[in-house]
Amino acid sequence: MKPLLWQHAPNDVGERLYRLAEELFPIIRSITGQGVRDSLGIIDALTPVDVHSIPTGTQVFDWVVPDEWNLRRAYIEDSAGHRIVDSINSSLHVVSYSTPVNATVSLDELRQHLHTLPEHPEWIPYRTSYYRRTWGFCLSHQQYENLTDQRYRVTIDATLAPGVLNYGEAVIAGETNDEVLISAHICHPSLCNDNLSGITIAAWLARLLRQRTPRYTYRILFAPGTIGTIAWLATHRDSIPRIKHGLVVALLGRPAPLTYKRTRSGTAEIDNVVSYVLSSRASNDVVIDFSPWGYDERQYNSPGIAANVGRLTRAAEEGYPEYHTSADNLDLITPEALADALQTLCAVIDILEGNDRYRNLLPYGEPHLGKYGLYNDLGGASSVETAKLALLWVLNQSDGASSLLDIAQRSGLPFADVQFAASRLEGAGLLERMRAAY
Amino acid sequence: MKPLLWQHAPNDVGERLYRLAEELFPIIRSITGQGVRDSLGIIDALTPVDVHSIPTGTQVFDWVVPDEWNLRRAYIEDSAGHRIVDSINSSLHVVSYSTPVNATVSLDELRQHLHTLPEHPEWIPYRTSYYRRTWGFCLSHQQYENLTDQRYRVTIDATLAPGVLNYGEAVIAGETNDEVLISAHICHPSLCNDNLSGITIAAWLARLLRQRTPRYTYRILFAPGTIGTIAWLATHRDSIPRIKHGLVVALLGRPAPLTYKRTRSGTAEIDNVVSYVLSSRASNDVVIDFSPWGYDERQYNSPGIAANVGRLTRAAEEGYPEYHTSADNLDLITPEALADALQTLCAVIDILEGNDRYRNLLPYGEPHLGKYGLYNDLGGASSVETAKLALLWVLNQSDGASSLLDIAQRSGLPFADVQFAASRLEGAGLLERMRAAY
Amino acid sequence: MKPLLWQHAPNDVGERLYRLAEELFPIIRSITGQGVRDSLGIIDALTPVDVHSIPTGTQVFDWVVPDEWNLRRAYIEDSAGHRIVDSINSSLHVVSYSTPVNATVSLDELRQHLHTLPEHPEWIPYRTSYYRRTWGFCLSHQQYENLTDQRYRVTIDATLAPGVLNYGEAVIAGETNDEVLISAHICHPSLCNDNLSGITIAAWLARLLRQRTPRYTYRILFAPGTIGTIAWLATHRDSIPRIKHGLVVALLGRPAPLTYKRTRSGTAEIDNVVSYVLSSRASNDVVIDFSPWGYDERQYNSPGIAANVGRLTRAAEEGYPEYHTSADNLDLITPEALADALQTLCAVIDILEGNDRYRNLLPYGEPHLGKYGLYNDLGGASSVETAKLALLWVLNQSDGASSLLDIAQRSGLPFADVQFAASRLEGAGLLERMRAAY
Repeated sequence: MKPLLWQHAPNDVGERLYRLAEELFPIIRSITGQGVRDSLGIIDALTPVDVHSIPTGTQVFDWVVPDEWNLRRAYIEDSAGHRIVDSINSSLHVVSYSTPVNATVSLDELRQHLHTLPEHPEWIPYRTSYYRRTWGFCLSHQQYENLTDQRYRVTIDATLAPGVLNYGEAVIAGETNDEVLISAHICHPSLCNDNLSGITIAAWLARLLRQRTPRYTYRILFAPGTIGTIAWLATHRDSIPRIKHGLVVALLGRPAPLTYKRTRSGTAEIDNVVSYVLSSRASNDVVIDFSPWGYDERQYNSPGIAANVGRLTRAAEEGYPEYHTSADNLDLITPEALADALQTLCAVIDILEGNDRYRNLLPYGEPHLGKYGLYNDLGGASSVETAKLALLWVLNQSDGASSLLDIAQRSGLPFADVQFAASRLEGAGLLERMRAAY
Repeated sequence: MKPLLWQHAPNDVGERLYRLAEELFPIIRSITGQGVRDSLGIIDALTPVDVHSIPTGTQVFDWVVPDEWNLRRAYIEDSAGHRIVDSINSSLHVVSYSTPVNATVSLDELRQHLHTLPEHPEWIPYRTSYYRRTWGFCLSHQQYENLTDQRYRVTIDATLAPGVLNYGEAVIAGETNDEVLISAHICHPSLCNDNLSGITIAAWLARLLRQRTPRYTYRILFAPGTIGTIAWLATHRDSIPRIKHGLVVALLGRPAPLTYKRTRSGTAEIDNVVSYVLSSRASNDVVIDFSPWGYDERQYNSPGIAANVGRLTRAAEEGYPEYHTSADNLDLITPEALADALQTLCAVIDILEGNDRYRNLLPYGEPHLGKYGLYNDLGGASSVETAKLALLWVLNQSDGASSLLDIAQRSGLPFADVQFAASRLEGAGLLERMRAAY
Repeated sequence: MKPLLWQHAPNDVGERLYRLAEELFPIIRSITGQGVRDSLGIIDALTPVDVHSIPTGTQVFDWVVPDEWNLRRAYIEDSAGHRIVDSINSSLHVVSYSTPVNATVSLDELRQHLHTLPEHPEWIPYRTSYYRRTWGFCLSHQQYENLTDQRYRVTIDATLAPGVLNYGEAVIAGETNDEVLISAHICHPSLCNDNLSGITIAAWLARLLRQRTPRYTYRILFAPGTIGTIAWLATHRDSIPRIKHGLVVALLGRPAPLTYKRTRSGTAEIDNVVSYVLSSRASNDVVIDFSPWGYDERQYNSPGIAANVGRLTRAAEEGYPEYHTSADNLDLITPEALADALQTLCAVIDILEGNDRYRNLLPYGEPHLGKYGLYNDLGGASSVETAKLALLWVLNQSDGASSLLDIAQRSGLPFADVQFAASRLEGAGLLERMRAAY
């Protein structure tokens, strides 16, 4: 069955996700700077995003918001004046947070500031140095091997100075203040799977959610990894208890099975729901245990936060060959993989929205279902239809404690059938929905 | 080891169960009417049964006791005066609760009231219409195909009028008021496995239990399915909390492995006991989870009742080919299958009766068993007999919380050996039986 | 990684364990008598042991301390004056606790007092009769078959009279009064695996522990089996609650996989620790459930004592062919097996000593580890070293409830790495050790 939320998606949503990634690709992003603001502006054109700023120097838990970094242009020029490495060709060419440089250096000195991938000689690596002041260039190993013993002019035209750290939020108000958090890291430069995939899917999810009034309030967070999430948590301590379920979304664009990584407890409702959705798909999706390594699930699952936030990716912790290299580009991701991930998220949200608990109002024996037009009067038939079974399961299990997903899993019936049975029974006055369910 | 209760059964109990089924077979039973009373009368001749009546129109939970239905004779006569379908040949020929009819109808009109089994052209199906007023005949598909385009006279000489719903109870008082409920549905007409098997076995079980004073009070209930059980529950709300263990018995006469269906909780003592007994048999018996479909376990396991009532059959939910057809007749069931099921029930009851909890009165280290004549004095031997192990296990585990079945299961020793060890230790003053055990 | 405690062991500890067994081998031991005192004296020469005495007739729980038995010499002399069986050749030749005898008997009468092993005609069995007054000789079946129809002179020059029961204790005081109990039975005569292996290993463990001040107080108990342990428990009822962890050590000298037998609960910390240590070894070690049969774990795990005492042997309950025969001699045990068992015990104690619980003092998000010199500043690298993972796991799981072993097991990281990470984090002020951990 198609997810309900998914019905709001246009037929070409895969291509539209991909085109959004194309638009965001060239921007020089880091954990701060104009690139983040430009990216949030592009998302805002798709679906409204509130952009917030936290000043440099703000203490956020154990961390301090760093200086803002903005890169205009960086290059290495040989003695003949040829720009052999130039940031205009790839935002990966400069180590993120490199200090400004304008100098002429020997080959030996230059080499101390160069990063390559000898095992993939055509790829440029992605490197950062947020908290240790240095500068550096990343280049292909082929480029590196063509360097000769001469003096090179290195120019990094950047500023590293007090400013702000930005994050964006798309908040879709629901019937209650209880929240579902979807979190995408937005700090990586021209890398597609990591994490233009998560950004574009989260943005489209916000757009789809705005087509309806959900029960939960949804907060779609676009924040720089680690420091951005920590800054958000530190400045939203009142919001944390309202997060009932959450997902970090990342690495969803390449064609590969989905991997759900459980929350720290491993027994949260989001764990149950995503595992159920993945097990319902004809795919090789996997579910793995929590580990304190990876993306921002680390912060959400720290012992003092302990929010029920899992992670959905198309890669387990071991990553993929193109991870953090220039090969994680627009050729690596596909419209189909992006759309499939969005559809899966819609299915997860459908269940979260509908995973009610009911109380059977006629709990002594079975109700006389024939009276309510819910049930075939002619007994004695040997086969029982799924619809009837769903009615009986919901009546039998609705003691106010079992959720519809619990009933679907115990009965082996599809969640949608169980949910439909509950709505019919509620309509007939036989069930009462529990208020505390969400 | 032979069950203790089973020792009261005559050697030919299988044949006697079968002959009782033969006697009950021709009676026209439904959820109400003279057939139920006649059947209870035949059981009463074997072992006393109290017959109770609940008037038509009585509200029982969400249900109302229906009019009483009594069928004298029904037939279809062709234009030549031949009775081509006649209830005298099979009580299945009339849809149960058919309204009275005396009319001449065309073939087309007649066909709208006929039920057959095209896939089993020689068998007559069993059909009911308790709560929708209609009439109908059931016949073999061969008969159906011989009908020709002529007018037929249909006669259903029945009454459907205010009366009573009956159920029977054989109550064997025990040392305590805590009850074991054995429930057999009694509403099916000439069908043997479903449920003359359950009826005859329950009746014989009552007879055997009357040979002793059990600890529990046993209530053997013979009631019409669904409405009869609901009526009993609604009129015995004070009794429900006294039901400590229960079993629905049905479909036990055909040679097939036993199937135990767990209670709704799945962790009741009856679940544990029956699973243990079945696992102790050299057979292909199976244990399945509860589902809210099947026989009267549906009512006992409704969320407001939640009695610990499992179900013992020789068929899982998917049934058997002859289910609810004229092929469920005396050829389908065997004396051996009936006796084997009764013996299994006796073994279950033996454990329920003996599943005590004890407290070790000398819990500090092991008692000096040699002093009590319970133990070999000559140490150092390398082999240990089961009897000694049973003594040690019972002493070690008797903290007042573990039952003898818990000890049997943890130790892997047969329940009877564990029980014997406990009685020896109790006799030697080393154990005290807990009062709260049942 | 080598256990820390093990670093105090000399390189030739295997040979020294073996030579200690050689020294103890010829002594005539039983549950009382000079042999026990002599054995404790030899151990005392290795590491100080306090020897305690409980008088004959003392009531100890359900038991009474028996008369003290001392054997000087026993033999069977044929009519020609040849001593065909003589205790000087093997302490096994006399049934332990045989009453004094000096008589001439017929072959028929003699045979009633002889014990052999027909299936192992060269081996002498080991037999005792502590609580039934009798006398007897054990001999090889070959010797038995050479007996002829003549009168034999039997002499058992023994005393069985009021005296004392002895046990020895090596107590190594730790930082706390909470105790770890290591218990070895000391009542068997010239049998090596059972239990000179346990005795020598326990003695050497005491010696190693005295090289440091442990956190726990260690009590190494050398007591006669059953009656000695019961006597110790009965006279140390205040000590029992202080036993936090314990192990019975026995049958550790023959080359065979280690077998850990769980405590009665099966979920004690000692169960977890020993299972973890065994699973970390490249061996065929096994872990088995508790049963109330075997060695003194029976007493420690009786329901009134319920101390968390497991058992470490190189044999499961089914024993080994040479068990309780003269073939359990110095040829059966090896220095390597003795040393390996001691090393394993050291690893167990290392974990018990270090299995702390911590509280993360900066639990909101991750600390900025780069600030503390604990973490690489240069992000973006795709491989993560175990050391970093250990830091993250310890921070993430240190909620004051999870022990370091819990974290090692959840993370799959070696305990030593987890422990090292915790000490680094504690040193950096990021963790606080919980006082209640031991």
